[in-house]
Amino acid sequence: MVSNSELKRYQKKGEYSYAFGMFPTMEMLENRPDCAEKALLHSSVPEEGKERLCKLCAGKGIPVYENDRLVEKLREKENCFVIGVVRKYACELERTASHVVLVNPGDSGNLGTVIRTCVGFGIQNLALVEPAVDIFHPKTIRASMGALFRLNFHYYPSFQEYREEYGAGRDMYPFMLQGSVKLDGLEPMARPFSLIFGNEAAGLDNSFLEVGQSVRIAHSDGIDSLNLSLAAGIGIYHFTKGKF
Amino acid sequence: MVSNSELKRYQKKGEYSYAFGMFPTMEMLENRPDCAEKALLHSSVPEEGKERLCKLCAGKGIPVYENDRLVEKLREKENCFVIGVVRKYACELERTASHVVLVNPGDSGNLGTVIRTCVGFGIQNLALVEPAVDIFHPKTIRASMGALFRLNFHYYPSFQEYREEYGAGRDMYPFMLQGSVKLDGLEPMARPFSLIFGNEAAGLDNSFLEVGQSVRIAHSDGIDSLNLSLAAGIGIYHFTKGKF
Repeated sequence: MVSNSELKRYQKKGEYSYAFGMFPTMEMLENRPDCAEKALLHSSVPEEGKERLCKLCAGKGIPVYENDRLVEKLREKENCFVIGVVRKYACELERTASHVVLVNPGDSGNLGTVIRTCVGFGIQNLALVEPAVDIFHPKTIRASMGALFRLNFHYYPSFQEYREEYGAGRDMYPFMLQGSVKLDGLEPMARPFSLIFGNEAAGLDNSFLEVGQSVRIAHSDGIDSLNLSLAAGIGIYHFTKGKF
Repeated sequence: MVSNSELKRYQKKGEYSYAFGMFPTMEMLENRPDCAEKALLHSSVPEEGKERLCKLCAGKGIPVYENDRLVEKLREKENCFVIGVVRKYACELERTASHVVLVNPGDSGNLGTVIRTCVGFGIQNLALVEPAVDIFHPKTIRASMGALFRLNFHYYPSFQEYREEYGAGRDMYPFMLQGSVKLDGLEPMARPFSLIFGNEAAGLDNSFLEVGQSVRIAHSDGIDSLNLSLAAGIGIYHFTKGKF
């Protein structure tokens, strides 16, 4: 286990990341106890939260340290009093499950929001096509509210490699401004599906018009496009509604 | 008109706000030319963008200044090379149009994202119940990508005052975790509607169960709630789909 003195502010190349805040830390402890190294507390954490956290850690055999200086060194915002230290891990996607595929996502906050929405609507497999932001960045974990710990993710060097591995037996839906059918006219099929979304600025390039059934979320010409996390949220909602 | 030397970094109490970036500035010029004071350029702006902007300003009789020091003083991010200076204005909501109502929104970015989604799906009237973030904060304008300039907004001291003014002849839908019907089972009626969303952290309190038809966006228990801008986006999409 990493010692407290070895812990540094987050680094992409480091072995560890951080869940900032009580709720994301609880999510880490509940859903990835095997990778949860420890929990760090600041003396300002409310007594009730502290008790719940300590009880959960005790049940899982995960150590808790109260160490104001360390929390103050690692945290990114002053109002963070609980930090979960997580060892980075790798996952594989489930072959028969539905996926969300993000091609070149560039914003950590958007990625976290998409993860939270995926988990909220029962999509537990996320493919990321490189270049893509670091899924273990604390901003992503925070924006996901710890939902990252409930999902399988995997990075692919290209969309082609994802498609070769998972393309058979599933329906692919690239979301594009020039998509050939409107989302609200689309009846999801019983097969597993992959919902594919492009980069915040560039969207998906025209080559995706040849991938499965391209879809557009029709909107007024008052905006040039929807925000990525919104488009993904609306797409995921449409494809999973009635399930909950 | 305000002189360049009087312009300060954004202040809530000030008379002016700023659209940071080319696209939001163009939106200001196109949609609120009456309140557009001037455009400020940095010498690093690409030539093509500069030409388009200058042409638009000339057509509207709005001055443009190239002034690196001023842009550098006002901007919040280093990669901003165009600033639209806008005089703050007040609006009234349209009585017979559909509205979105945000009760105590606390995050400027979320507010901007909701505005962009509203405009994207043809909702051009937004009520804000106080306490609420400042709609003219440059972060809101930026997150809206300038869609703020295409929408009417109005602040109300309480939901009750909004309801007294606009409640007649419309259907009200408060979105709540404990809402009594699921969104996907709801068929929007022909009357104008108000979609009501609560604060990021607290949602709407139970008193809203008595307001119109409460709605929930059903999701898995893997998350405690959806992000506000996601919930609003999905709600607005559902109520307006088929319109575009």
